[in-house]
Amino acid sequence: MAHIDLGVDEHQFPGISGLWRFRPETARPLGDLAEVLLRGPHPMSAGERELIAAYVSGLNECNFCCSSHSAFAAAQLDAGMPLVDRVHADLDSAPIPEKLRSLLRIAREVQQDGRRVTAELVQAARDEGATDLEIHDTVLIAAAFCMYNRYVDGLGTLAPDGPDGYAESTRRIIERGYTI
Amino acid sequence: MAHIDLGVDEHQFPGISGLWRFRPETARPLGDLAEVLLRGPHPMSAGERELIAAYVSGLNECNFCCSSHSAFAAAQLDAGMPLVDRVHADLDSAPIPEKLRSLLRIAREVQQDGRRVTAELVQAARDEGATDLEIHDTVLIAAAFCMYNRYVDGLGTLAPDGPDGYAESTRRIIERGYTI
Repeated sequence: MAHIDLGVDEHQFPGISGLWRFRPETARPLGDLAEVLLRGPHPMSAGERELIAAYVSGLNECNFCCSSHSAFAAAQLDAGMPLVDRVHADLDSAPIPEKLRSLLRIAREVQQDGRRVTAELVQAARDEGATDLEIHDTVLIAAAFCMYNRYVDGLGTLAPDGPDGYAESTRRIIERGYTI
Repeated sequence: MAHIDLGVDEHQFPGISGLWRFRPETARPLGDLAEVLLRGPHPMSAGERELIAAYVSGLNECNFCCSSHSAFAAAQLDAGMPLVDRVHADLDSAPIPEKLRSLLRIAREVQQDGRRVTAELVQAARDEGATDLEIHDTVLIAAAFCMYNRYVDGLGTLAPDGPDGYAESTRRIIERGYTI
């Protein structure tokens, strides 16, 4: 049960969804940010951007965000959940394009501390064809999930067990997006 | 110099201000979030909320965000920068209200990992009179600065040296706020 009274049934509104109902004033910019970063017009696919969100949430061991964004990524990537699981298990050997791997390496450092992003890591991404926009958005997606993860866990919200608990939100996000 | 070409003179637009010009689509929700959390209608003063932002940015050792939000807090708290410095130096002995101290203790755990916020820490804040809204917003301010800090440092932006470099932005934020 959450640390505060969210005024909703947490089984019906788990994770961030209960927090959004508790405080719609902050839900709006939080939803708008996720929408631009993960679903707005972009050279990277929504599946690839959700994969960055899922990967960082996994590193932060945020059960709710990792399960949801892994499901959202899997639903939008041809290779589905087996590929997402490979990335979580070992970024270096996962069968993904080298540009995406180089961006995920940047995200991995951001998860620890922004100052760990080196000119070499950025150059490596550029050498694989990453643009300034893609590098910028990778850093911001990784940073944003360091926020969403702490928000969801810091207030002790409920995370559904097993993949079935995320099927409905996957449908909703893919159809309607994050905007409130 | 930033890791990517922001298209602006970084001395004129240091830290997050250059990033906001590079990517206005993300600047808008990021600014809206800061506005609601740090300046919107609230039982806590803007100075107290800026102090949480400054404290977390100090823990993350983000030079730009810590310097700016310390300046914004100092300008809006009667006791000014000496008090902000005391909080940075030692939260336990700083001469602040006990409710604010108990909320800053929650923020300190969020900075490390959301899962470190215990029911005991939340109860301690409640015992000092903190409401669910104040606990919620403290967690989200702390989480949000774990994002802003990583964003600013992950892209290697410039931080002005010394307090003079933050005087103009202090005036601007207090007069006009964070909204783009």
